[in-house]
Amino acid sequence: MTTSLGDLGAALVQWRRDLHARPEPGFCEFRTASSLVDELERFGYEVVYGVDAMDPGAAHLVPEERVAAWHRHAQERGVPAERLERMSGGATAVVAELRCGSGPTVAFRFDIDALPLQEADESSHKPAREGYASRNPGWMHACGHDGHMAIGLGVAATLAACSDDLGGTVRFLFQPAEEGALGGAAAIAARGFVDDVDYLLCCHLGLEARETGHVVCRTDFMATSKYRATFAGRGAHVVNSPQDGRNALLAAAAAALALHAIAPTSEGWFSLNVGVLNAGTEQGVTPASATIDLGFWTETSAAQEYLRDRVHSVIEGTARVWGVGFDIRLIGEAPSCMQSENLAAVLRRVAARLPAVTRIDDYALCRAGEDATVLIKRVADHGGQGVYTLVGSALADGHHSPRFDFDEGALSIGVDLLAGAARELLRVGNGE
Amino acid sequence: MTTSLGDLGAALVQWRRDLHARPEPGFCEFRTASSLVDELERFGYEVVYGVDAMDPGAAHLVPEERVAAWHRHAQERGVPAERLERMSGGATAVVAELRCGSGPTVAFRFDIDALPLQEADESSHKPAREGYASRNPGWMHACGHDGHMAIGLGVAATLAACSDDLGGTVRFLFQPAEEGALGGAAAIAARGFVDDVDYLLCCHLGLEARETGHVVCRTDFMATSKYRATFAGRGAHVVNSPQDGRNALLAAAAAALALHAIAPTSEGWFSLNVGVLNAGTEQGVTPASATIDLGFWTETSAAQEYLRDRVHSVIEGTARVWGVGFDIRLIGEAPSCMQSENLAAVLRRVAARLPAVTRIDDYALCRAGEDATVLIKRVADHGGQGVYTLVGSALADGHHSPRFDFDEGALSIGVDLLAGAARELLRVGNGE
Amino acid sequence: MTTSLGDLGAALVQWRRDLHARPEPGFCEFRTASSLVDELERFGYEVVYGVDAMDPGAAHLVPEERVAAWHRHAQERGVPAERLERMSGGATAVVAELRCGSGPTVAFRFDIDALPLQEADESSHKPAREGYASRNPGWMHACGHDGHMAIGLGVAATLAACSDDLGGTVRFLFQPAEEGALGGAAAIAARGFVDDVDYLLCCHLGLEARETGHVVCRTDFMATSKYRATFAGRGAHVVNSPQDGRNALLAAAAAALALHAIAPTSEGWFSLNVGVLNAGTEQGVTPASATIDLGFWTETSAAQEYLRDRVHSVIEGTARVWGVGFDIRLIGEAPSCMQSENLAAVLRRVAARLPAVTRIDDYALCRAGEDATVLIKRVADHGGQGVYTLVGSALADGHHSPRFDFDEGALSIGVDLLAGAARELLRVGNGE
Amino acid sequence: MTTSLGDLGAALVQWRRDLHARPEPGFCEFRTASSLVDELERFGYEVVYGVDAMDPGAAHLVPEERVAAWHRHAQERGVPAERLERMSGGATAVVAELRCGSGPTVAFRFDIDALPLQEADESSHKPAREGYASRNPGWMHACGHDGHMAIGLGVAATLAACSDDLGGTVRFLFQPAEEGALGGAAAIAARGFVDDVDYLLCCHLGLEARETGHVVCRTDFMATSKYRATFAGRGAHVVNSPQDGRNALLAAAAAALALHAIAPTSEGWFSLNVGVLNAGTEQGVTPASATIDLGFWTETSAAQEYLRDRVHSVIEGTARVWGVGFDIRLIGEAPSCMQSENLAAVLRRVAARLPAVTRIDDYALCRAGEDATVLIKRVADHGGQGVYTLVGSALADGHHSPRFDFDEGALSIGVDLLAGAARELLRVGNGE
Repeated sequence: MTTSLGDLGAALVQWRRDLHARPEPGFCEFRTASSLVDELERFGYEVVYGVDAMDPGAAHLVPEERVAAWHRHAQERGVPAERLERMSGGATAVVAELRCGSGPTVAFRFDIDALPLQEADESSHKPAREGYASRNPGWMHACGHDGHMAIGLGVAATLAACSDDLGGTVRFLFQPAEEGALGGAAAIAARGFVDDVDYLLCCHLGLEARETGHVVCRTDFMATSKYRATFAGRGAHVVNSPQDGRNALLAAAAAALALHAIAPTSEGWFSLNVGVLNAGTEQGVTPASATIDLGFWTETSAAQEYLRDRVHSVIEGTARVWGVGFDIRLIGEAPSCMQSENLAAVLRRVAARLPAVTRIDDYALCRAGEDATVLIKRVADHGGQGVYTLVGSALADGHHSPRFDFDEGALSIGVDLLAGAARELLRVGNGE
Repeated sequence: MTTSLGDLGAALVQWRRDLHARPEPGFCEFRTASSLVDELERFGYEVVYGVDAMDPGAAHLVPEERVAAWHRHAQERGVPAERLERMSGGATAVVAELRCGSGPTVAFRFDIDALPLQEADESSHKPAREGYASRNPGWMHACGHDGHMAIGLGVAATLAACSDDLGGTVRFLFQPAEEGALGGAAAIAARGFVDDVDYLLCCHLGLEARETGHVVCRTDFMATSKYRATFAGRGAHVVNSPQDGRNALLAAAAAALALHAIAPTSEGWFSLNVGVLNAGTEQGVTPASATIDLGFWTETSAAQEYLRDRVHSVIEGTARVWGVGFDIRLIGEAPSCMQSENLAAVLRRVAARLPAVTRIDDYALCRAGEDATVLIKRVADHGGQGVYTLVGSALADGHHSPRFDFDEGALSIGVDLLAGAARELLRVGNGE
Repeated sequence: MTTSLGDLGAALVQWRRDLHARPEPGFCEFRTASSLVDELERFGYEVVYGVDAMDPGAAHLVPEERVAAWHRHAQERGVPAERLERMSGGATAVVAELRCGSGPTVAFRFDIDALPLQEADESSHKPAREGYASRNPGWMHACGHDGHMAIGLGVAATLAACSDDLGGTVRFLFQPAEEGALGGAAAIAARGFVDDVDYLLCCHLGLEARETGHVVCRTDFMATSKYRATFAGRGAHVVNSPQDGRNALLAAAAAALALHAIAPTSEGWFSLNVGVLNAGTEQGVTPASATIDLGFWTETSAAQEYLRDRVHSVIEGTARVWGVGFDIRLIGEAPSCMQSENLAAVLRRVAARLPAVTRIDDYALCRAGEDATVLIKRVADHGGQGVYTLVGSALADGHHSPRFDFDEGALSIGVDLLAGAARELLRVGNGE
Repeated sequence: MTTSLGDLGAALVQWRRDLHARPEPGFCEFRTASSLVDELERFGYEVVYGVDAMDPGAAHLVPEERVAAWHRHAQERGVPAERLERMSGGATAVVAELRCGSGPTVAFRFDIDALPLQEADESSHKPAREGYASRNPGWMHACGHDGHMAIGLGVAATLAACSDDLGGTVRFLFQPAEEGALGGAAAIAARGFVDDVDYLLCCHLGLEARETGHVVCRTDFMATSKYRATFAGRGAHVVNSPQDGRNALLAAAAAALALHAIAPTSEGWFSLNVGVLNAGTEQGVTPASATIDLGFWTETSAAQEYLRDRVHSVIEGTARVWGVGFDIRLIGEAPSCMQSENLAAVLRRVAARLPAVTRIDDYALCRAGEDATVLIKRVADHGGQGVYTLVGSALADGHHSPRFDFDEGALSIGVDLLAGAARELLRVGNGE
């Protein structure tokens, strides 16, 4: 028996609010993932999760202490021990599959992590007023990932209910740690889950589509890379023997200036930022250590490649100038998009049939990184097609704000759009 | 009835060990000061302490939160409430006076604060082996101030015992917060306690006099100034609107480089160090704030003056370059010395008569700052004379080491030297 | 009697070669201007030139010594004294006008200056082979301005020949010193010659249109500003009294780094370059003076405005850091374009009728500055319309190369295009 | 027959004025050297000069074009072709020797080059008033080397006249290119002329001894090193392809800042100065080349060694940061002194016997470099002794001023002092 559309609308809201109230950091989504497993298994999907669903070693930065703390947090709140064991080390991805005879493979990707924000508790903030605001202090679903997951569950339920009409395979990728591009996408890709995908559909609520009913078929993101560089100098008493010191603070300072002075490239606009610099401990001692965190966002992969190379030269050279050691570590990365025009056209056709859709744009550029591009690129590299679509929603406040809230009415539009696309792509007899 | 020399030797050790076991940070020496008050009153001195002995507002940097915590710490350990009340806000100086008829005023200054070090607990470390190591975790008398206080009490006891032979006034200044030159000396000076002083005698154990029996009559220190500069920029999303950001991190980085590139001066060697730089919070946002801590040590006051001026230009100018606001605050300062040749000669004569003294040097340069110079300079500015002498001691390890320890045999040499000088300066009929 | 097309073709080549052989630097185009005056008067135009045609004081940088030298050079080569006198001080603009009854005013702008290049004398270089290469060593028409002037004369001749068919006014602006954006356009604008213009047509040979027969109707250029900043410090013997020095070299060095580290803006791509830095005279003396030449090129005027502001902050602030004086002077500037879609459409229609035109593009972006934009912007500010069009030409080598040469066959296309547009705009009864 | 003292006084003035009128740059002292050869041969010395007296390849910087020009200059002024041939390539040293039986070897070193200054021609300037001012425009003996040579000839004449009283060898080293420490001393040392020297006596007029009659027995100089660093980047059109540029200007700018920020050393005061920076050619092109000239002066050889190492790190590292090539070349060097107390004592004894000497100081520190130290150090390294003495003179204006002039009365004091010392050191039977 299939879920009726009316029922699904209520379920979407219920899923969303349950998840909204329990936000978890990237690679710490233990309770979140466990809930997803429950629902997906209930829909009849074959579900894998934990280290079967992702390779934590392929991530860029897994914050180990935080992961351990949230692992205990989930245990205390009743997440089954067996589930937690398989997710230990931050393996919080969930992959669900439904095979419906022969035909192409359609995959969906939804992100599941939250942000380090204390949610507003003002009565004007609906989650607070209606009692489903975050119960995890200091963390909040302020980027709509709770809505993404609800859409994902809705699509899964919808497609399971009409599986007889489908020819091919449906796969759902629930991905941890999208924020910061820490490597959740890469960790799933490392298990091969997108290598055989013919069509990959990704989505986001809001962003450049700020009204409910507005759909953007295809959205480009900027490529991004994030690095942490450390300089290891030598402390010395600055009056007794300043000549014995090797100054890591000045190395970091000079590196910051040189990084910001990297020449522009005609291959596309970019912004590079050394966002954090910490060095030294006291006035009387040559600073022996320094750390900088930097990121860059580029319009093109060529510009990203150019900056990667220049950044390494600057760090290495600066260390040499000041006679200090150095280490440079990639802590986040996503390429720019190469999206499928074909899939965008499919989405446009589907959207055009939906009464709730009031505006359709072909394209938008989003001035941010998004590691769905890791997966889209990998699909394309293997001959498949991927696309990133925006499901419009009126917003109470901007993304990443403590007062962020979207219109839950957008959820069913997202389900109808994505499920509709899958049905078109997997229609029996539709040999691509 | 006078204390016999034998008795005093034992008392010196007892005082020293009692104080050594209870080290307290600068402006937090509540229990220390209370003990000193007890002893000095017992010897018959007129004692003032707390806000009567110093003006906390004249200090450069009083660490308020720490002061409050140690205030509670002292309360819990039984320092009388009345004492603590008068010392609230970090007014931990003690001034004791004995008037012995007409004649000049001789003052002594001893420093009383400890260092942020965890004392060694190895059996090879005598204080640990014999049970008088620090009971305050993370803090240690590793610069001999416990010994200085013991010498001070010994001199006070000695002079009280022979007060009939003296013509003039004896005054003891027990000064908080010598380490870091936070302004303990300036705070005492602000109450006028050195303005009428004819002779000021200051001392240190060890330093350039590393054998017991070695005395250096006159010791120069380097002038020093310490500043904290903050830059206040404006955060901006570095992809959406980098042009709206004003980068405090780059301001601080450029300032650090420019400060280290200040031209040398033929007026004397100096070392300037930006010891700490902290800026920014995350990669995606223009760093909106930055702080640097810097200090410089100069051979001459002319060089100190030169650097003060240049440092201000660099901070102001750099803020202008990057369009950020700035604040610069003096957090520590001591001038270089202008010591009395006459007092040094007195000390030499006294030392020459002491059997335990095996080596006398006229002069040493100590490559560090020491805010006794604030008091010596003020005495000289008012027509008096001041001198800084070194009382030699064999050392178990260098100053500011967790294994620092001096030879307690040096304490009585210090007492004999300083008390002897006072007796010579205040000999009845010695009108000088 | 009108000039037949065949005759005009020969004249175009003759004019071009005569001018090509006598290249002159910006604001030094004495002989060039004099030749233009001769021809334009011959066609029946009312001609003004020298200080009547431009205000040298409104230019950004008039190279006085060079102007004086080329003034003598022109005198020696027979340019009439009366002409030279009116052009003294570098006033080498020529403005010609033909009034043909009532109607709108159509203006044309052509640039007339050459480049500091030694022209190739290889036989493969046609001007060398055929004997019309530059006779002025070290200078060359390597950007096609000789061709522009020939087109201008051709248009002037053509329109004079059909003046009876025109209703309105035709004006020709022959502008000095386009290269470097030294201010030739601003100097002409300062005399009011574009304030009453309804339609302004500008053109360039080649650039993004590299085949003969290719026309680009509308071309955007980048906004550009160029500055010279000087720092005035104080020399001092670096061993005897380094503290008395104020280091202009370090000021310039720090400024260069800070300028290159100006944050990007989401208002458009830009490139800023400190192209020249010269400072100091000898190792033993604090460098007392330094000069930097910098330029920036921006996609938008908003970005240009942003950089202007930031550049001034950097220079002022850096001077303060190092205790030196500073001066900053604008030496070149051009805004970005706001071109007329209407005029582009007129050009497209005319081009479509020309048999020699084989390709028409609506738009191109040229990654360079061009101070015709000063005039186009002023026309637009006064309610008129302006456009910049590219007349395609096969090229022997790129612009600004010693082997640059264009196809003289492009000249008549340029004439037909521009004269055709003017005829359409001034057709009697065309009130538009 | 010996020259009487009266005669020598006149000769000293004559030699000095002849040389003063014909100043020549370092390694260009062709006429100067030829005159010295004439005189020394006349006194009976065995004289070698040119490539026999020095190895130009051991010099740091021989300015080849200048040398060629002055070679022609000397030829035109009648210096014999044979002499010039042996001095070609800048080999302008002269070494003269007199063997007087067995005994130690005493050597003297005098510098012979002039400075790039236009001598004052005011009547208040005695050389101008009395007609012996420089005849070589732009060059001047403004550091007293003309006087040094006169003293040298005077000592040579004096010792030749009393050779019967001497037991040992007397050697005179007339050294080119002292100014700038270009390597004149090293070039003479490379021929072995100081390896067997027992006593080396060097002198200077004036400096810290500014009254005639004042003698300083022993003078320390600062060690110095001078480098030229070049950076080779890659030019690129900064709008079309800024990413292809490699910016030599920013490399040089960052290097200059980093060089000035080298930490101080407790091994002695120093001053480092980047005196010259030239980079780039135009605003629109990434600067492809840059040059910096730097020097440092240190109180100790340890500090010199420390800076050498740090300077190389900075240059290498900075080149790496900016992706440019680099070259670093030593263009001048002199160590600090290790002088003989014994020789200073000899000079003191001799000076004490001279009626014209009115003040004797044991020691002075001269805040400058002086490459006599190269020779003194080499003598000491081979077991001999060296000393640098100051012969006081009233001065019309400071050294290196266009109005510099010394008191010719100081010349005979110099002769008496040095010749007297040699006689004491070579007294027959004085085996020391």
